[in-house]
Amino acid sequence: MCHHCVIDGVKKSMLSRRDFFKGTALAAGAAAIGAAAAPQPLFAQATMPTKAEDLTHELYDMFPTFFGEQQVFYDQKFNYAEHKFNLFELRVNEHTGTHIDAPLHFSEDGRSVAEIPVGDLVCPLVVVDIRAKAADNADAQVTPDDIKAWTDANGDLPAGACVAMLSGWGQHVATEKFRNVGADGKTMHFPGFHIEAAQMLMESASGVKGMAVDTLSLDFGQSPDFAVHYAWLPSGRWGLECVANLEAMPAAGGTIVVGAPKVRGGTGGPSRVFGMA
Amino acid sequence: MCHHCVIDGVKKSMLSRRDFFKGTALAAGAAAIGAAAAPQPLFAQATMPTKAEDLTHELYDMFPTFFGEQQVFYDQKFNYAEHKFNLFELRVNEHTGTHIDAPLHFSEDGRSVAEIPVGDLVCPLVVVDIRAKAADNADAQVTPDDIKAWTDANGDLPAGACVAMLSGWGQHVATEKFRNVGADGKTMHFPGFHIEAAQMLMESASGVKGMAVDTLSLDFGQSPDFAVHYAWLPSGRWGLECVANLEAMPAAGGTIVVGAPKVRGGTGGPSRVFGMA
Repeated sequence: MCHHCVIDGVKKSMLSRRDFFKGTALAAGAAAIGAAAAPQPLFAQATMPTKAEDLTHELYDMFPTFFGEQQVFYDQKFNYAEHKFNLFELRVNEHTGTHIDAPLHFSEDGRSVAEIPVGDLVCPLVVVDIRAKAADNADAQVTPDDIKAWTDANGDLPAGACVAMLSGWGQHVATEKFRNVGADGKTMHFPGFHIEAAQMLMESASGVKGMAVDTLSLDFGQSPDFAVHYAWLPSGRWGLECVANLEAMPAAGGTIVVGAPKVRGGTGGPSRVFGMA
Repeated sequence: MCHHCVIDGVKKSMLSRRDFFKGTALAAGAAAIGAAAAPQPLFAQATMPTKAEDLTHELYDMFPTFFGEQQVFYDQKFNYAEHKFNLFELRVNEHTGTHIDAPLHFSEDGRSVAEIPVGDLVCPLVVVDIRAKAADNADAQVTPDDIKAWTDANGDLPAGACVAMLSGWGQHVATEKFRNVGADGKTMHFPGFHIEAAQMLMESASGVKGMAVDTLSLDFGQSPDFAVHYAWLPSGRWGLECVANLEAMPAAGGTIVVGAPKVRGGTGGPSRVFGMA
């Protein structure tokens, strides 16, 4: 598979990059995350939320995948007509549908999905809207300037936030545009976070806990090196991919609740994601 | 499998019982659920929650199951040493670990897990504590008297609640006591809801949305007929089984957030369950 080859090809450069992050941003990030876990109101927003938006796409057998292959398989073990109850066994690649990437996904010994503290799954939600530039350019990325535009408009990042990219790609989920393979027949074109924006968030004193995208990858589709994955996840932070319905959430003041699976040793998994505002 | 035979043996009696519920409690319950969905603060509790408890057991290959067989299987497709990232494919029976039962699980055409409205997954949490009697009797059930004791102490059931049985069984999850097979080598002994308590909740004007148990089944272990499953789920309500850590929640005033999987056509599935208070 071409994407596996890409990953294979960047192993050595990533190893040196990871050592850099281990020595700097990782330590700073861990301290910030620890600080954000101090007792405080569960929701940063000033008033009791009045709505829960479903930030989750429905998952089904042919849900589009990064690798382009089917990753959900149903096996009906019992059916109502014959057994008077219905039950399926499902075979699912962890990184399918609206799902979480745990630190262990792109690190040797990072936290598994079951080891992410439950308090890190309830976070202030920061929505960075890049729909305008993504409509013009499928290779658009969230840059430091986009983060700055958000803080200029909304103030400092809230403590322990999840920073989400709203590129508008969620509306393409049932079409070829979601993967958007280019003329070369293999390279995908969809938005993601720029490595410099990821670094900016990792260095923020606010202790950003997670990032979310409405596309198939934290890195933009044509990424040659998964730079954001290799920087962000080994730092102890989580990512969410294929998030739905972000346009229903305010830019600031909302809360995300990530119903991540609690699978021992898991590297991530399909999640039920709520946006409360 | 003996449990399948049990189910097979009660088909006919259940059919007539289901017709009864279709004509009475189902209609009343559906109306009540509709009423509870009217716009209102997301959380019934008076003040902003300050904590999120994890009501989810860690899921792993040998997590105890109702049928007594392994229901979680790992297949590591990529590993860090070789591929520079980790990824598993999981094969999982929907009804394993801390999981939701959708109406479709015990009905021919009820709502799938993906069709449960997201607003029905955020509910006031009512904790009915039967630990004292369950400690003396593994076959203890939540009865109408237990519900009445809760309302006597805490007032009316809140609108659209999830009513949870706290039997203390969660602490037994890693031991034989969780399934607690009796001397006959097949009948299990653990607490559950009595059918009369389920009926009382279905008839409540408060519009109860869900029930939860800290054991393997909504029905108690020695149930010969899955009476609660066959009454509750076809009424459009959901159930949660193997809930953890309920003892950390207040009897009244908390909120449950059920991170149910959004699998098209699914009959339930492992869920990440939060208790907020």
